[in-house]
Amino acid sequence: MTKKIFLDESDIPTHWYNIVADMPNKPQPPLHPKTGEPAGPEDLSPIFPMGLIEQEVSAEQYIEIPDEVRDIYKIWRPSPLYRANQLEKALDTPAKIYYKYEGVSPSGSHKPNTAVPQVYYNKREGINSITTETGAGQWGTALAFACAQFDVKCEVYMVRISYDQKPYRKVMMNTFGADVYPSPSDRTQAGRDILAKDPDTSGSLGIAISEAIERAVQDEETKYSLGSVLNHVLLHQTIIGQETIKQLEYAGNYPDVVIAPLGGGSNFAGISFPFLKNNISEDKNTRFVAVEPASCPKLTKGEFMYDFGDSAGYTPLLPMYTLGHNFTPAAIHAGGLRYHGASVLCSQLLKDELIEAVAIQQLECFEAGVLFAKTEGIISAPEATHAIAQVIREANQAKEEGREKTILFNLCGHGFVDMSAYEDYFAGKLSDHSFTDDELKKNLQEVRELSVNQ
Amino acid sequence: MTKKIFLDESDIPTHWYNIVADMPNKPQPPLHPKTGEPAGPEDLSPIFPMGLIEQEVSAEQYIEIPDEVRDIYKIWRPSPLYRANQLEKALDTPAKIYYKYEGVSPSGSHKPNTAVPQVYYNKREGINSITTETGAGQWGTALAFACAQFDVKCEVYMVRISYDQKPYRKVMMNTFGADVYPSPSDRTQAGRDILAKDPDTSGSLGIAISEAIERAVQDEETKYSLGSVLNHVLLHQTIIGQETIKQLEYAGNYPDVVIAPLGGGSNFAGISFPFLKNNISEDKNTRFVAVEPASCPKLTKGEFMYDFGDSAGYTPLLPMYTLGHNFTPAAIHAGGLRYHGASVLCSQLLKDELIEAVAIQQLECFEAGVLFAKTEGIISAPEATHAIAQVIREANQAKEEGREKTILFNLCGHGFVDMSAYEDYFAGKLSDHSFTDDELKKNLQEVRELSVNQ
Repeated sequence: MTKKIFLDESDIPTHWYNIVADMPNKPQPPLHPKTGEPAGPEDLSPIFPMGLIEQEVSAEQYIEIPDEVRDIYKIWRPSPLYRANQLEKALDTPAKIYYKYEGVSPSGSHKPNTAVPQVYYNKREGINSITTETGAGQWGTALAFACAQFDVKCEVYMVRISYDQKPYRKVMMNTFGADVYPSPSDRTQAGRDILAKDPDTSGSLGIAISEAIERAVQDEETKYSLGSVLNHVLLHQTIIGQETIKQLEYAGNYPDVVIAPLGGGSNFAGISFPFLKNNISEDKNTRFVAVEPASCPKLTKGEFMYDFGDSAGYTPLLPMYTLGHNFTPAAIHAGGLRYHGASVLCSQLLKDELIEAVAIQQLECFEAGVLFAKTEGIISAPEATHAIAQVIREANQAKEEGREKTILFNLCGHGFVDMSAYEDYFAGKLSDHSFTDDELKKNLQEVRELSVNQ
Repeated sequence: MTKKIFLDESDIPTHWYNIVADMPNKPQPPLHPKTGEPAGPEDLSPIFPMGLIEQEVSAEQYIEIPDEVRDIYKIWRPSPLYRANQLEKALDTPAKIYYKYEGVSPSGSHKPNTAVPQVYYNKREGINSITTETGAGQWGTALAFACAQFDVKCEVYMVRISYDQKPYRKVMMNTFGADVYPSPSDRTQAGRDILAKDPDTSGSLGIAISEAIERAVQDEETKYSLGSVLNHVLLHQTIIGQETIKQLEYAGNYPDVVIAPLGGGSNFAGISFPFLKNNISEDKNTRFVAVEPASCPKLTKGEFMYDFGDSAGYTPLLPMYTLGHNFTPAAIHAGGLRYHGASVLCSQLLKDELIEAVAIQQLECFEAGVLFAKTEGIISAPEATHAIAQVIREANQAKEEGREKTILFNLCGHGFVDMSAYEDYFAGKLSDHSFTDDELKKNLQEVRELSVNQ
């Protein structure tokens, strides 16, 4: 049996796939936070280059990938597709399990897929300095790498809890040449306001986004870069699914179910959207399951409404499943999944029931991650273990039902820099966590009032 | 330009290459430490299974790789060969630089290449428990992974300084199911003796080897496993060079110089020996450069003599370049290179001038590692940066001389779990270190007296 399926570098996709072109219900527009009117390209231009804004609002089905970007993609792409035959054997399941492994990238996750084009379009427009936020550090590392490739300055605001839990991530960013600050920091008004209210806050992605945007708005020479959520970010990640389709063709297979963790949505979109296109246009019936942590359940317990993408309210209002932009998730190790909302595209698709969502507690995820390491030999990022936990559920169900099925998941990153999470797990320091309905309602009520006021 | 050259899983070599068959001067035999007579297979049988002992003493040119081993190799092999075109550009060199990347393995280094067959041969002979030592943690992680694949118990003695500097490595071993103890420990007589003399010792590979062997000798159900130095370990690593020859054929190229770091010698042997065979039998003129840290200069400042492989004197006496088995190297971060001796095979080849050696200080190595990360996108293990530093020297020389040459090196592992080393480097906490001739002489004199007494 072939364990790994590689493609040639000439098989790196030539275009990104834009699902907006094929969505039965188009996403609602973002709204300007002050006027309540649809936000246009000009509202985004202070913080993004036009090349990315055009992609953000595009309805074209395919957008060409510049040669300069494809050349850098060659450092690690096409990424391998693996058959999880050792895991299948351990589970004694009739299911066939495949995983696309994005951990082979310079930063160890799928994030460079979008970091490289984002820095490219900034550089093309003369920008030599970029700010960003990072949760677990995956995104900041990816942007730092991309900035090093184009000789662009990189300033990263890292969520305080991850900064403390994952010191190696900071050093990785430094190695690629970036400056890293724990967020909230005293370098921005947004950071200082939060610190005044709660000096011991563990921070959140929403807060860090506010800080990075504030820095970009203040300085004309500096732009801001976001690692997930936005349309152009999801767009860039679609090379994952496009490659996988070709790889599964070589394996003579097609997935019955596609599984990925969902933080903002770019990893999930990357593996899913090219297959989802075939559901819409080719009569395929693949299921798509987004997995979120039970301690940050925006998809399964949030509401679909207009909300800010950040904590301070600097972004446009976005129509999305959210727990409220003021929501602070439990301090779980899967930092990349600690975000209050889901991307506009994933939210609309969930609303339209074209995709599904499930919330899983972290102990089940770590248990799955340890089994995966022992069988498949890859220690996964805590975010990725959420997908593995759901894969095991699906594989066990296939066994109970006695039927073959093909499961595909996106192993979005390795866990070599997250070993403190496994350490805490083995030491029995981790526990499951759920918010009560009352806790969740409180945040949402505030956001609802805000939406009504628009 | 093609950045990466992959091979099919069917291209995983079917045989290991045994250079003993082709050496002009055969290696001298190991000596029994008590009798001074050549040690035979029966002397090794308390700690190794017969399958490995046969390989240790074999003079066959090729030894077949069992299917069960090749099946597990498929998890990550064949490993990719990269063209370092971004590094070439940064150096503005006419040299063509290629690197074989072994960091794609489950433990992130070349070590599983031998861990898997070692556990396989133990398991085949009914052994269900294996002890070992580890320096930086690369070897212990590899053995832990291999033991998980064959459901064998794994007990690892980890050099104290690395145990403290690299806590993530311990957790990786735990994740694969191994028990890990800092060495020297109070679990063995060898450990207790050292602790009594120097309670604050940073440990050494030699001490950790003594501890692991002692445990294996005490328990009939337990065998010992070594990650470098021995003939059978070097043998297993030759799949690296065999794959690389095929990959360079696809690239239409052949190396003028092959470079690898040398700790015990298995990594260097793995990439070099299959090419060295062509020097011996096919009139090729490739240079082979082993790179050692200036703070542990056994090849460039040690002496060729019979010495123990471990600190306590449990192993047979081996004819090798050594600084003395009682030598404690400076506490550099490249833990895998902190070993007092070089393998018998590499030592004989150096003595016969079939290979070269160079010693490099650690600051030059880290500087090289940072440039490599920014250009090629891979953060290397501190051990691997020793090769990169020498590659840069060779590439700069090619530029000065204005001539093309092809440089190949073995990027033996990634540095994701070694970020504390880079952190210390950026913080200015690292310095270069050389031992004085007097310091080196003192150890060697003791060993020389011992040799004379045999």
